[in-house]
Amino acid sequence: MKQHILIGLSGGPSAAINASMAGVIKAAVESSHYDKVYGALHGVEGVLAGEIIDLSPFSTDEQLSLLVQTPAMALGSCRKKLTPDDFPKVEEVLCRYEIGVFFYIGGNDSMDTVLKLSRYLKEKGSPIQVVGVPKTIDNDLPVTDHTPGFGSSAKYLYHTMHEIIRDSEIYPVKNVVIVEIMGRNSGWLTLAGGLPMFLGGVYPQIVSIPETPFDECAFLDTIREELKTRHTVICAVSEGIRTKDGSYVGMETKSGAVDTFGHVYLSGVGKYLEMLVSREIGCKVRSIELNVLQRCASHLASKTDLDEAVSIGKAAVKAAEDGKTGIMMVYRRTSDAPYTIEMDAVDVAQVANLEKKVPEKWFNLYDESVKQQICTYLLPLIKGNVTPICDETGIPRYVNIRSIHEERE
Amino acid sequence: MKQHILIGLSGGPSAAINASMAGVIKAAVESSHYDKVYGALHGVEGVLAGEIIDLSPFSTDEQLSLLVQTPAMALGSCRKKLTPDDFPKVEEVLCRYEIGVFFYIGGNDSMDTVLKLSRYLKEKGSPIQVVGVPKTIDNDLPVTDHTPGFGSSAKYLYHTMHEIIRDSEIYPVKNVVIVEIMGRNSGWLTLAGGLPMFLGGVYPQIVSIPETPFDECAFLDTIREELKTRHTVICAVSEGIRTKDGSYVGMETKSGAVDTFGHVYLSGVGKYLEMLVSREIGCKVRSIELNVLQRCASHLASKTDLDEAVSIGKAAVKAAEDGKTGIMMVYRRTSDAPYTIEMDAVDVAQVANLEKKVPEKWFNLYDESVKQQICTYLLPLIKGNVTPICDETGIPRYVNIRSIHEERE
Repeated sequence: MKQHILIGLSGGPSAAINASMAGVIKAAVESSHYDKVYGALHGVEGVLAGEIIDLSPFSTDEQLSLLVQTPAMALGSCRKKLTPDDFPKVEEVLCRYEIGVFFYIGGNDSMDTVLKLSRYLKEKGSPIQVVGVPKTIDNDLPVTDHTPGFGSSAKYLYHTMHEIIRDSEIYPVKNVVIVEIMGRNSGWLTLAGGLPMFLGGVYPQIVSIPETPFDECAFLDTIREELKTRHTVICAVSEGIRTKDGSYVGMETKSGAVDTFGHVYLSGVGKYLEMLVSREIGCKVRSIELNVLQRCASHLASKTDLDEAVSIGKAAVKAAEDGKTGIMMVYRRTSDAPYTIEMDAVDVAQVANLEKKVPEKWFNLYDESVKQQICTYLLPLIKGNVTPICDETGIPRYVNIRSIHEERE
Repeated sequence: MKQHILIGLSGGPSAAINASMAGVIKAAVESSHYDKVYGALHGVEGVLAGEIIDLSPFSTDEQLSLLVQTPAMALGSCRKKLTPDDFPKVEEVLCRYEIGVFFYIGGNDSMDTVLKLSRYLKEKGSPIQVVGVPKTIDNDLPVTDHTPGFGSSAKYLYHTMHEIIRDSEIYPVKNVVIVEIMGRNSGWLTLAGGLPMFLGGVYPQIVSIPETPFDECAFLDTIREELKTRHTVICAVSEGIRTKDGSYVGMETKSGAVDTFGHVYLSGVGKYLEMLVSREIGCKVRSIELNVLQRCASHLASKTDLDEAVSIGKAAVKAAEDGKTGIMMVYRRTSDAPYTIEMDAVDVAQVANLEKKVPEKWFNLYDESVKQQICTYLLPLIKGNVTPICDETGIPRYVNIRSIHEERE
């Protein structure tokens, strides 16, 4: 008897998570193992609340093409951490809908859900499988070469940095520009912002990642030194840069709030450094917080990223057909030149709640050999432009799963 | 005897000013009237300093194509207001280089330079012509239907707003997003951010422009009302919104600094409103300052905008051939459907130091007829995608006039 499958999305949005969802739907519809494809609104919160919708209307080729190019999360998301009390309720809902496989697409925290739920179901002797599909712009999941969504955000940062450079150097006036880039504990995205320099350009002269201690005096000295020979200094800094003692830079200017996973809510290191430079150096200074713009910039999506995101969704269905559970799909890079990857499945315990940081061998970002290695790693991931299907105003068409669902209610 | 021409760029950057410069170069090179094409580095500051370069190496078709797709200002810029003492010095430099026509590409303040310099030269009996070419993302120049650069920034705002909407509505949590858009005294760019709503969508529910008084109580009441029926409220607000008494909203949180033209330096109305909503309503709230990203987003340039910007540069050369001086080129819209424009020249005194605001008949932005008129006006300006010439990493290639010049020195 054919089983049904359920898809849930969790964590922060990206330009590629809907592409992975499209891959799962496509492969499931074509599979002889599966029948109906359901979606949970707002991840496990929707499962707990029984907010499950039939995705059949969205399994046509046209709808799937639109889903691939739709930013953020077509089923909505949550940041819910399951508690032991939640598991029986989740199991009950999965059984009610005769779900054979629950595909959960998300980042580190979402893989915690995959780990715990799959263990619970195994212990209970339930045949229901739980399969994790990676997603995070932060690129901080272990084992996998990179994460779906990272390539598109990296491409956005690379292009945007080029435009910021041009914008910053028009006046014959000493000025410093600080670009604040997402990355709580890892500097992957900030490396993408640094690409113009890693590729041999002048800017940004300073690239600061959370993996290496940030020294305010050295930062100011570098700026002073650079301003001796040119007008403009550009700095790409991760939101999560820390001092040698491990405290976030400019901590005192931040809110101190924590999210449900206990992460300190960050904002404003760019503004903090802007004030620091203004006070200590006194030249014109501007901070730019790229904010959510770097998460969902589908208009600059990397074709490589979206294609791979679809493929890893399909590969997840294949792994499910093979009976796997408690796994997360990963990319394995098999060659740099030409760039090739393979899909694989690993025990989600190798991934859940763990973070992949920028490796120590790259900590000296200004070393020529390091620059080259960073480019070798990053450039294939941002390659290729997507030509979206647009409406008559020129805007890409998006799918509206939730609003269609709401209209039906 | 053939004359030489000089091009200068002034004011803030855009995605289209280099396209207008390319139009001037192209038409001048093809003209029987003109010989050498020179560029002044950093506008009139470069003229005063004698920083004049020969643009011959950049007049090939390939270089001009690259110039069109290069954001910001290839010759650099300035915000210099000429004083009476400067005029003889400017005239001396123009004579030294045997300049017949000085093309100055810029906004309201730059047209002040065109006005004063052309009057001075006329009074002195000098045959040197001064021709203004409009440029401003703000779209606040009178007479012309719109300004080169506006269409590309408007397109950026329209696309980015769509992505912000998708990013904002993923969690089942009450939240308010405030998008701060450039516009000191006019709301043209903010109208572009409002396009998703003017076209019939839900978001952004609030669009606030400087032309109409901002009422904090009404703002909060609208948000409270909207939150009764949905999770997400999105607001598009101009940086220059004011209260009924004319003072900038959140003035107390701003720097109070003024630029050389006496404009109050603005920043932070988004942050101010974020704090207001947080304090008064208490839900999740985020402000997004689009910052310089909306000025030079060549990667989302409007093809219509770039094509027209090249054409108005060429038309300026034609007007110069006709002996005109003390003029600014304008677009005249001759039809909405199909959208057509013609180029014309007007006395720069009709433009200099004046600002075109959003018309009073549009002040009720939530009226269906107004929405339609705004769409009729805006949509043609953002039409068409540009396919840039890219390097092997996929980044558009830019011209490097100043750095090549510096290397030669």
